Amino acid sequence: MMTEQPALRFADEIDDLGQMIAEMGGIAEKMLTDAMEALSARNSDLARRTIAADPDVDRLQRAIEEQAVAVIARRQPAAEDLRELVGVMRIAGDLERIGDLAKNIARRAIGIAGEARGSRILVGVRQMGRLAALQLKTVLDAYATRDPASAVRVWRKDAEIDAIEEATFRDLLTFMMEDPRSISYCTHLLFCSKNIERIGDHATNIAETVHYIAAGASLPIERPKSLENNGAVTVLS
Amino acid sequence: MMTEQPALRFADEIDDLGQMIAEMGGIAEKMLTDAMEALSARNSDLARRTIAADPDVDRLQRAIEEQAVAVIARRQPAAEDLRELVGVMRIAGDLERIGDLAKNIARRAIGIAGEARGSRILVGVRQMGRLAALQLKTVLDAYATRDPASAVRVWRKDAEIDAIEEATFRDLLTFMMEDPRSISYCTHLLFCSKNIERIGDHATNIAETVHYIAAGASLPIERPKSLENNGAVTVLS
Repeated sequence: MMTEQPALRFADEIDDLGQMIAEMGGIAEKMLTDAMEALSARNSDLARRTIAADPDVDRLQRAIEEQAVAVIARRQPAAEDLRELVGVMRIAGDLERIGDLAKNIARRAIGIAGEARGSRILVGVRQMGRLAALQLKTVLDAYATRDPASAVRVWRKDAEIDAIEEATFRDLLTFMMEDPRSISYCTHLLFCSKNIERIGDHATNIAETVHYIAAGASLPIERPKSLENNGAVTVLS
Repeated sequence: MMTEQPALRFADEIDDLGQMIAEMGGIAEKMLTDAMEALSARNSDLARRTIAADPDVDRLQRAIEEQAVAVIARRQPAAEDLRELVGVMRIAGDLERIGDLAKNIARRAIGIAGEARGSRILVGVRQMGRLAALQLKTVLDAYATRDPASAVRVWRKDAEIDAIEEATFRDLLTFMMEDPRSISYCTHLLFCSKNIERIGDHATNIAETVHYIAAGASLPIERPKSLENNGAVTVLS
């Protein structure tokens, strides 16, 4: 019995890190949905609360990184556990970026809250936001349950967000050309749309990490989307 | 003599990682200057070569991360060496993002290469690009020479890039409003400007890491710029 104790405590340490990732993921998810709601409803208070949550995400990232490194240094873990610990650090890095991007959307929501425009202009951005939030939720669940198949589905689905971003980009450009007074407003939405697209990329990174932890193998470096066919550039080429 | 050997070999491992960072930093620096040159000179070939360099950066990041973790697991390093190794992983993460952002500028350079517009429109973006390249070069030198004072200077100087980005944003918006045919072109420049601003942020992250490695203490979390006064939002508020 005594000899099992160190192993049990090591498992506890890994569980602890998993809990911290779940907490961090929960905050990042809420930041994204709140930022999108603040944007849609022109709710600057909600946007400010979203921005105020970001330091918690940053602190959790540092704590996770430090704890994972301390465990690696102390335990000299075997390959499988090392994969888990490196994976935890990578996921924390992606969640930190997602928090940052959601904060950026919230800032822009404040910037344009005073400008009332038709809701049609927001359709694409909102659709992207819903899809990105679903991707994030799914991949965090896939991490919690160590489900590589679900991670692969998230990884494949990212191309949908990219496709909506392309369409949204064209729509917003059209709005601007038709009504130059909307240029400043639409520019902020263009950046919001880009931020959401990048949140999708980070969810995809997490999917790759979950696959690497759970299946012990990396997914191919190339993602299931054409790199040349990426967003804005297509519009001009 | 024999007893010193493990310590020497550990120092060699750390030196190796330093070399890899220098290599990665060199590629990222070249990607940034090439992307900016491709944008200014409407040189799509150069832009394509810039894009082609990005997988090298990604591979180096993975290699550095894996090697640093392997060293941590094998050596159980003391606090100071652990700081160095964690720092190396952080810097590699920032350089990977810088490569990505430079690639994105190169893609947009291809997208707008066919559109000849006055060079005045590019003034702000080019100025930002030069400043960001200088920041990156300086912080990589600060890392190589373990110079925390130089890192702090980089850290402080980032606010300049942010200020030029604000001015550039306003300029580009004005161009679009005055000539709606320039909307698509200017939108790409807006994104380039944002990408450069973020490259500056990553150089600032590296400065923080260099300070953490060399001085053994973190810089304050708040950076020397007003968060509320950040770029685009100001224009509207």
